[in-house]
Amino acid sequence: MKYLEDRIRDEGKILPGDVLKVGHFVNQQIDIKLLAEMARELHRLYARDGVTKILTIEASGIALAAAVALDMQVPLVFAKKGTSANVAGEVYTAKVYSYTHNRTYDVIVPKEYLKAEDRVLIVDDFLAQGNALCGLIEIIHASGASIAGCGIIIEKGFQPGGKLLRERGIRVESLAIIESMNGETGEITFRT
Amino acid sequence: MKYLEDRIRDEGKILPGDVLKVGHFVNQQIDIKLLAEMARELHRLYARDGVTKILTIEASGIALAAAVALDMQVPLVFAKKGTSANVAGEVYTAKVYSYTHNRTYDVIVPKEYLKAEDRVLIVDDFLAQGNALCGLIEIIHASGASIAGCGIIIEKGFQPGGKLLRERGIRVESLAIIESMNGETGEITFRT
Repeated sequence: MKYLEDRIRDEGKILPGDVLKVGHFVNQQIDIKLLAEMARELHRLYARDGVTKILTIEASGIALAAAVALDMQVPLVFAKKGTSANVAGEVYTAKVYSYTHNRTYDVIVPKEYLKAEDRVLIVDDFLAQGNALCGLIEIIHASGASIAGCGIIIEKGFQPGGKLLRERGIRVESLAIIESMNGETGEITFRT
Repeated sequence: MKYLEDRIRDEGKILPGDVLKVGHFVNQQIDIKLLAEMARELHRLYARDGVTKILTIEASGIALAAAVALDMQVPLVFAKKGTSANVAGEVYTAKVYSYTHNRTYDVIVPKEYLKAEDRVLIVDDFLAQGNALCGLIEIIHASGASIAGCGIIIEKGFQPGGKLLRERGIRVESLAIIESMNGETGEITFRT
């Protein structure tokens, strides 16, 4: 999406550790016209894939996931982060390591929300290492549901997540793929 | 909203400790037609109040807040929960006690996302004790912005939050207000 790339190039800030700050229009404050356009684009990309459910993970992916679900008219499920010690049996869980927070957490989805007949579109805001998405994929596999693919706002193309997922045969559609970013010059280039 | 009340009455489960479980259509899995209707109704209720921003708190309020923001065409901001030790000065924070988790946490909103000229509609899924909403109101006051009111899916009318807020002069619109619920019989009555 050219408009998204322009916004990232003009307004994104590169912080130490290859952190891209777009909180003022994509994450913590959300530009609603951009949100509607991104949802429409993901709907268009997955319109013929029989999607029955949108799955995301709390918290920053929920707004886009809700917008996509509204556009596609399918239910939205979000995975919670936490510890699942007391709910075994009733939930699917996967362990996810977070580079951002340097810790491992459980991703949890109650079994009643994912059925074998579901075809799931995973939606999230960022794709870098891909650990959160791999956790969600593990849960979908455990449920017997099938995966239509992943819909991502910003993929860091210089980190391995997108490549790993595509090599596993999973369709990944990222609305902007950053090929490189330079913290000193502030320059951001996109994969074309 | 009669339809919401019917869904709560037919599908809600009352758990020990006056917990109402509606996770399969309101919280963790979201019925998208219901979501769209709830957003439209909150838009209708606040259509003439000059709302410039929707504010919610992660995580379960974000989906409704995004739907309301899309309907009203204003930006969405969500407050994060966490500890704010290292970000003082750049953020507004308020301390909130959670009865559900029996702990106090910080509610955090970067200062750049709330301006004195903003008129804020607070959106959340549940209102019981009202602690989370009071934290958001404290942050809005600190920013100098004004409050249009609160838009809530389910208010537990037998708990004090709604009364406290209304006594403070804050407009609270709840799409369903539960007057009482009986864990033994499963009976739920609504305020009319």
